[in-house]
Amino acid sequence: MKRTIRVAVVGATGYAGAELVRLFQSHPNAEVTTVTSARSAGKKLSEECPWIASSLQLETFHPGIISEDFTFLCQEAGFAMEHAPELIKRTRVIDLSADFRLKDPLLYEQYYNRPFSAEGTQGVYGLPELVDRKEIANAKLLANPGCYPTGTLLGLMPLVRAGLVTGTPVIDAKSGVSGAGRSKKDTEYLFSELSGGFKAYAVSGHRHTPEIEQLAGVPIRFTPHLIPTPRGLEVTLHVTVSSGENLTKLYEEFYKNEPFVNVVQAQPSIKQVVGSNRCDICPSYDEHTGYAVITTVIDNLVKGAAGQAIQNMNLMAGLTETTGLPISGLWP
Amino acid sequence: MKRTIRVAVVGATGYAGAELVRLFQSHPNAEVTTVTSARSAGKKLSEECPWIASSLQLETFHPGIISEDFTFLCQEAGFAMEHAPELIKRTRVIDLSADFRLKDPLLYEQYYNRPFSAEGTQGVYGLPELVDRKEIANAKLLANPGCYPTGTLLGLMPLVRAGLVTGTPVIDAKSGVSGAGRSKKDTEYLFSELSGGFKAYAVSGHRHTPEIEQLAGVPIRFTPHLIPTPRGLEVTLHVTVSSGENLTKLYEEFYKNEPFVNVVQAQPSIKQVVGSNRCDICPSYDEHTGYAVITTVIDNLVKGAAGQAIQNMNLMAGLTETTGLPISGLWP
Amino acid sequence: MKRTIRVAVVGATGYAGAELVRLFQSHPNAEVTTVTSARSAGKKLSEECPWIASSLQLETFHPGIISEDFTFLCQEAGFAMEHAPELIKRTRVIDLSADFRLKDPLLYEQYYNRPFSAEGTQGVYGLPELVDRKEIANAKLLANPGCYPTGTLLGLMPLVRAGLVTGTPVIDAKSGVSGAGRSKKDTEYLFSELSGGFKAYAVSGHRHTPEIEQLAGVPIRFTPHLIPTPRGLEVTLHVTVSSGENLTKLYEEFYKNEPFVNVVQAQPSIKQVVGSNRCDICPSYDEHTGYAVITTVIDNLVKGAAGQAIQNMNLMAGLTETTGLPISGLWP
Amino acid sequence: MKRTIRVAVVGATGYAGAELVRLFQSHPNAEVTTVTSARSAGKKLSEECPWIASSLQLETFHPGIISEDFTFLCQEAGFAMEHAPELIKRTRVIDLSADFRLKDPLLYEQYYNRPFSAEGTQGVYGLPELVDRKEIANAKLLANPGCYPTGTLLGLMPLVRAGLVTGTPVIDAKSGVSGAGRSKKDTEYLFSELSGGFKAYAVSGHRHTPEIEQLAGVPIRFTPHLIPTPRGLEVTLHVTVSSGENLTKLYEEFYKNEPFVNVVQAQPSIKQVVGSNRCDICPSYDEHTGYAVITTVIDNLVKGAAGQAIQNMNLMAGLTETTGLPISGLWP
Repeated sequence: MKRTIRVAVVGATGYAGAELVRLFQSHPNAEVTTVTSARSAGKKLSEECPWIASSLQLETFHPGIISEDFTFLCQEAGFAMEHAPELIKRTRVIDLSADFRLKDPLLYEQYYNRPFSAEGTQGVYGLPELVDRKEIANAKLLANPGCYPTGTLLGLMPLVRAGLVTGTPVIDAKSGVSGAGRSKKDTEYLFSELSGGFKAYAVSGHRHTPEIEQLAGVPIRFTPHLIPTPRGLEVTLHVTVSSGENLTKLYEEFYKNEPFVNVVQAQPSIKQVVGSNRCDICPSYDEHTGYAVITTVIDNLVKGAAGQAIQNMNLMAGLTETTGLPISGLWP
Repeated sequence: MKRTIRVAVVGATGYAGAELVRLFQSHPNAEVTTVTSARSAGKKLSEECPWIASSLQLETFHPGIISEDFTFLCQEAGFAMEHAPELIKRTRVIDLSADFRLKDPLLYEQYYNRPFSAEGTQGVYGLPELVDRKEIANAKLLANPGCYPTGTLLGLMPLVRAGLVTGTPVIDAKSGVSGAGRSKKDTEYLFSELSGGFKAYAVSGHRHTPEIEQLAGVPIRFTPHLIPTPRGLEVTLHVTVSSGENLTKLYEEFYKNEPFVNVVQAQPSIKQVVGSNRCDICPSYDEHTGYAVITTVIDNLVKGAAGQAIQNMNLMAGLTETTGLPISGLWP
Repeated sequence: MKRTIRVAVVGATGYAGAELVRLFQSHPNAEVTTVTSARSAGKKLSEECPWIASSLQLETFHPGIISEDFTFLCQEAGFAMEHAPELIKRTRVIDLSADFRLKDPLLYEQYYNRPFSAEGTQGVYGLPELVDRKEIANAKLLANPGCYPTGTLLGLMPLVRAGLVTGTPVIDAKSGVSGAGRSKKDTEYLFSELSGGFKAYAVSGHRHTPEIEQLAGVPIRFTPHLIPTPRGLEVTLHVTVSSGENLTKLYEEFYKNEPFVNVVQAQPSIKQVVGSNRCDICPSYDEHTGYAVITTVIDNLVKGAAGQAIQNMNLMAGLTETTGLPISGLWP
Repeated sequence: MKRTIRVAVVGATGYAGAELVRLFQSHPNAEVTTVTSARSAGKKLSEECPWIASSLQLETFHPGIISEDFTFLCQEAGFAMEHAPELIKRTRVIDLSADFRLKDPLLYEQYYNRPFSAEGTQGVYGLPELVDRKEIANAKLLANPGCYPTGTLLGLMPLVRAGLVTGTPVIDAKSGVSGAGRSKKDTEYLFSELSGGFKAYAVSGHRHTPEIEQLAGVPIRFTPHLIPTPRGLEVTLHVTVSSGENLTKLYEEFYKNEPFVNVVQAQPSIKQVVGSNRCDICPSYDEHTGYAVITTVIDNLVKGAAGQAIQNMNLMAGLTETTGLPISGLWP
């Protein structure tokens, strides 16, 4: 079976979209055949994204141009909600935005400042290690998780499912700057403003909060920060637990069959997973205060976006889940 | 009064020592007249530290060479304990190590793996904004605070002293790499290993924990991380409080007379205080979970080390506290 | 004499303007009393520039509001040409733009795509180490040199004035990103696009070429590059010379009385001059090919802009040339 | 044909060695079956290189343990010279050191400070785009080019072979820090010393000079610099030419059949080739001075080391040259 799956990437000049194109170049069974861009239609993809060696030509999106087996939507909130109901008649859809992640439309409206307008259309939340893979396999519309929820939930859920959590988990999360996307042009995203900096942001009410709480089933305190590097995401979870015994064993057992989750002994750096679809997790327990301290690292654009989307596509297409996905990081 | 105070810097080729030399170059009342280095005695300081324009010659330390008014010790743990009892007969001593910070010698032994051997010699803990400045003014031996304790306590103590803290404060702290010093030569501190990385470290039992708890009076959960930049330190404090009303006013009131503490509305970046002796603090309250979320930023080598040491010297010498200390950061 | 000189900074929220405000905070004889901003008038400077601790309020510029002794213009090309003829009736002007650097109006028009419209008004080119300081001292309108010309000419002129240059000097220059200013908002200046990158740009016809050639008196091949760091500028000059003997001595002799120029033996890093007004120069000769290879480093915002502007002001005001200017770099 | 080629990596915990392991994980026809390390034998590779997800165990090298089809030597100068004569009896050898790059043993001795001791053993210089691919295909011992020579020669040789070069090419080259390897532990390679820095080094007599001159056939002026980022290498070539017409066409023609060389219009950043085996080249001509200015970018660890080594192995094994090698860069 060689490159029989045809793929469209809608919004291919953003970071997640271009990352999909890059990753698919080494996927043995799938090929990107359509790429779109609202701003740059008519140009070559490589002109807008000089890191991509490709002869693909950017088109203007409308549902009618899509004939591919899978369509990846890499657009701002609102876009998928508008187009998915139509698109899923022609193609299986993997949406990298937040539009179909929250089951409660009121929460969506509260956090995204727009009503949920795609009533009747539902997505399957695609965090393979933590949900029912059969639902993913059968999905017409896959809601690809956010980067922070991926890094947080992979660290938190073993404690939750073991019934150990006794208080509000304190989630102190840090992301590389690419999480802000490629289209934000405010002064604050300039190289000279961020290089050598580090700061918290969106301390109250970050949009990923309800997405995490939906799966975790408990309220969380969530504080994101910006790391002065383009890629990578670290989450430090501080969780009061009823027992801190054998946490490492608990995590190893929980993830023993997971090719993309790695329980480690030494505190992991985001750098060791950059470019890979891996999540490294280091659990520990602090007797002094009764807190479990769990750290996780992912590449926000791979396991936190494009890589996980391909992992979901592999499941949906009946392929081995790891097909075409890098397991080692790019270092140094 | 021009440059009448003479200063010795012991350990002048490390980051804190060299920063003292640099800062004193614009101090109107003090002058560095002796610099020492164990490894590089005989060389010019500028040879070992090409960023310093100076004709100072590095000497080998022994107490007998010191005739200065003030002596700053910038050495590893153990050094001050050995030499301070003798030195304070000849000079006033400001120690940038941890040797005289902890009142309890057993805690010192537990965290620093050596017995406290300078019985009978006591230091004054010099965090001017939070302790009795008269004690600092009269000190013979000043224990200059650690960088993490400075950033943490400036954020935490307004809540503690207002009696608002109801649980274990969760301190998620992040430091630039210079905090590790200039003499660590392990692979892990190489540029190529840290650039683009971010990680937690010393998750259990970091040495600054008891120093923070000593002043705070409550146990804390403390997790430090390494930011891929040389300078700057951010602390995010997650504290359950009995009331979250008017936190900004509380902090503004608490620090209203402090020239080096700045209560800000927008989340501060470490970058805005790099090179300055300032601490910017942003208090907020999360109704969703009942947590106060306080963020602070300092330059770990200035307010977290050399700058605060000069601030203490100014108090000890009867000078205006801000003399010669930069108040604005170096940006971009 | 304490703070008797009053200073206005026009365009204070850009990098050079804000750097002037920061540097003047430790200048013993001058004080910034007016700051202007086209976009942010009415706000506090510290709101737009959170690294500056100051109560200064931003105003809208027009010549009538200026009553200061010195006015620093930190604006795009064209602004000074429009306002300087009027302004110099009220204040001495130091212009950090290119408007008055080129003596030949046709060259100005060719490189800056606008006619030189301030006929009859002339600036004094203020590169103190290489021009007649008396002319600077007497200037009403001072044209502060560009960053690349400063770094290049300090390295090139000792060879030129010794009559050693035999061919076209090849100038391979590299600048930190702050050289692009704070107002460029194109995608290419985003943190995520530049971090980890390095590239040449403006390979043909960079605007600083005629400025260098005007003083050097020879045509040059000039290629600028972008370093992935905010500050600092390095120039590597490859110059065929009639003799490569004793180059170090030649440079030491040339700069023996210059407090801000430092002839060094070890290849200098831009990092060692960041934050300082220093230029470090390392001359060498390659017998293999007959090329002198001269490297220079400056901070593009200090010796390459704001610091040199203050150095010029010191000369114009009759102060010691080094007054208030940092001589050591900020490291690490 | 699936993973039928067995590969040994000698020195697998260094940057080039680990990069080989990483790249081979997505090579469809080859598999790494032996990894060695002088310092870490007995440990798992993933313990020393936490970015590599692998169960490979590190062994101590001696020729007798090698039964693989191909053996990649990633060691300091001297190692290959000692072991290759024996090893090529058991396996085909690809040496990433300089030992077999120079045809003239006297030049080797002059630049590497040791006599060339493997008389009678010769390597084939493996820069596929510029040498006879048949010789590579038949090699028993392949000398993989240095990173600077790769970036330089790909930019220079089209001019040389067209007979256009009229003077000494001035090569101003810049490399990411990983070029220094993983085992240098001097202060100067610490993160805090290099972050935010940029400097020239080895201005006279860099070891890659004779390697470049050997193929170019002309003396060159070569000046390397260190970029504050781990990966990537840029070369700016300033070459006086007899004619500057149609340079872009010349380069496009020269490389029209080369899958890994890309002639581009916009100045390329090292960032766009990081992680890929690509070389992007931008030729231009400066009428003002008669210089051709050619810029090239490669990833020093991929096209400059491990990737090119695999490209050579593909040729030696009769595989398609591009097999398993990434063509797009990792961005941002």
